[in-house]
Amino acid sequence: MQLVEGVLKGNRLALSRLITGVENDTPEGRDALDQLFPYTGKAHLIGVTGAPGTGKSSLVNQLAGLYRHPVDGSPALRVGIVAVDPTSPFTGGAILGDRVRMRDLTGDPGVFIRSMATRGALGGLAYQTSAVAQLLDAAGFEVIFIETVGAGQSEVEIARLAHTTLVVEAPGLGDDIQAIKAGILEIADILVVNKADHPGVENTVRALQSMLNLGFSDGRSSGKHLLSSQKTDCPEADADPELWTPPIHQTAAIHKTGIEDLFCSLQEHKAYLERTQEWERRGKARLRRELDELLQATLLRRWQSRTPEAIYQATLERLERRELSPYRALEYLMKSEWIS
Amino acid sequence: MQLVEGVLKGNRLALSRLITGVENDTPEGRDALDQLFPYTGKAHLIGVTGAPGTGKSSLVNQLAGLYRHPVDGSPALRVGIVAVDPTSPFTGGAILGDRVRMRDLTGDPGVFIRSMATRGALGGLAYQTSAVAQLLDAAGFEVIFIETVGAGQSEVEIARLAHTTLVVEAPGLGDDIQAIKAGILEIADILVVNKADHPGVENTVRALQSMLNLGFSDGRSSGKHLLSSQKTDCPEADADPELWTPPIHQTAAIHKTGIEDLFCSLQEHKAYLERTQEWERRGKARLRRELDELLQATLLRRWQSRTPEAIYQATLERLERRELSPYRALEYLMKSEWIS
Repeated sequence: MQLVEGVLKGNRLALSRLITGVENDTPEGRDALDQLFPYTGKAHLIGVTGAPGTGKSSLVNQLAGLYRHPVDGSPALRVGIVAVDPTSPFTGGAILGDRVRMRDLTGDPGVFIRSMATRGALGGLAYQTSAVAQLLDAAGFEVIFIETVGAGQSEVEIARLAHTTLVVEAPGLGDDIQAIKAGILEIADILVVNKADHPGVENTVRALQSMLNLGFSDGRSSGKHLLSSQKTDCPEADADPELWTPPIHQTAAIHKTGIEDLFCSLQEHKAYLERTQEWERRGKARLRRELDELLQATLLRRWQSRTPEAIYQATLERLERRELSPYRALEYLMKSEWIS
Repeated sequence: MQLVEGVLKGNRLALSRLITGVENDTPEGRDALDQLFPYTGKAHLIGVTGAPGTGKSSLVNQLAGLYRHPVDGSPALRVGIVAVDPTSPFTGGAILGDRVRMRDLTGDPGVFIRSMATRGALGGLAYQTSAVAQLLDAAGFEVIFIETVGAGQSEVEIARLAHTTLVVEAPGLGDDIQAIKAGILEIADILVVNKADHPGVENTVRALQSMLNLGFSDGRSSGKHLLSSQKTDCPEADADPELWTPPIHQTAAIHKTGIEDLFCSLQEHKAYLERTQEWERRGKARLRRELDELLQATLLRRWQSRTPEAIYQATLERLERRELSPYRALEYLMKSEWIS
């Protein structure tokens, strides 16, 4: 298959076409995934999530720049960026506004940017995103950012695809904006308070510290990474090598402050994952989850294709009116007429 | 069916037997659920969750006492208590230690207490707990506490069964104890800091306030309900009648302080649910979720019963070694030999 060979040789047009095939769940897309799957498993997948307005795209932009031009003299890495908007039904244009800010990255053949949005693909958006990340992985992108808008259940699932999950917060978003859904903090490997030059940053950092200390940390993460501290080399990690404590970073992406410290934390976390075999474990857990999701989705889809929607709705209404018990409703829905 | 009639007449032995039938997923248990289902939907389901050591059982004990002997002269209500331990494989004895403290409630025919633990019942522990709550509901218990140990994913699912969810916290549990899993706060209708006579209570309250303000509240919940304030009548609610802001209560259950305020919040929340049709909406959403869970569980179970476990494991391992792609693994697992 020509496109598959193109991807392995680094042809961007071939990669774009195959991604479209995967998004549309075409036979070509599936075939390509099959053929490219043996070449996957090398990239560092970095999930980036947080509420709209926290400046995630600028942050990813800056980090990608550092991977392309590392300040510490380490080799430049190829960077893929997958921007996912689970709330938008449109692909491509969905996060275009953000992508405009990525202008300084485009034209660099070592960077590939793609926006994705909701489709009815088998296994849902999480599976679809994973599939696109696999294509980028096979195409030789060594660092892949998976950026999601929002912080709901879908974002959590998408973030779980990653080796390293960054949760981005910003001060002054107002109290009633759902700035942080608490659930997302559970999956954070690194916390970032972006726009740290704005007022109210101390409150945001303090609240994050409280949540970490209460919930799922040993409390050593308090404010080590301040906005002011700048360096050009990543320091040796001083913490327990077997234990990861989510650090809280303060950054101001548009002023390029705090980005290098954050970049070092990403490197540290990758080293931690490799040292503790957590890298392999997360990769395997991801594959297993993907398989189970495909399986359940396929079983349910097959059932739905054999059961008229009107039957399901009518059954649900009878259940709500308490004319049918849950088991009777189940029995009715599983009746051989619809199923066999 | 004699047991079903017994339950409707308030016979405790009949109720106990049917609960056992439901727990063991016997045909009698299912039949009873079918016959009793039309009598359900009246009880106020109150979920109570939080880490071990926060004193949930004492709190439920005290609240049950108030429902039995309301201080404001409202009629006494019948109270069911379902104590669930998702981590324990044993039923009955699991939370017996806690139940000993309920001594002053036993002997009261208006109180029924039952402990439950993990079983392989269809739909999982969440479905099973819901089924037991339905039996108590049909038996005429007007308030049903569903108390879970811990605050993981299963507890969240169990708590979602309730109309009103109480999340219980306590000061001084230490930083590394997973005192709060952040995710559970999202589902809290009422927050309780129990053991509020212990040192460190201010920090716990402040941390909860930060989390609420950051995440999912309009910030009006700050410390209205202090340990010191005691009253005998529930006050008129002064907040926006269309909007519920999770209050933070401070209680010391073993000293019986703060319980009446909490009791009033429970009444207020019930009134709020009824006023906004949220009561009906939560009930319907619960039924739909139950039906979908039964459906997915049944489809997966049927698939598993037709697919040897060794086949699944071997396929997973080939996937991990990247000998099979996810789609090929899926195709292999869905092959007609195992399925048809």
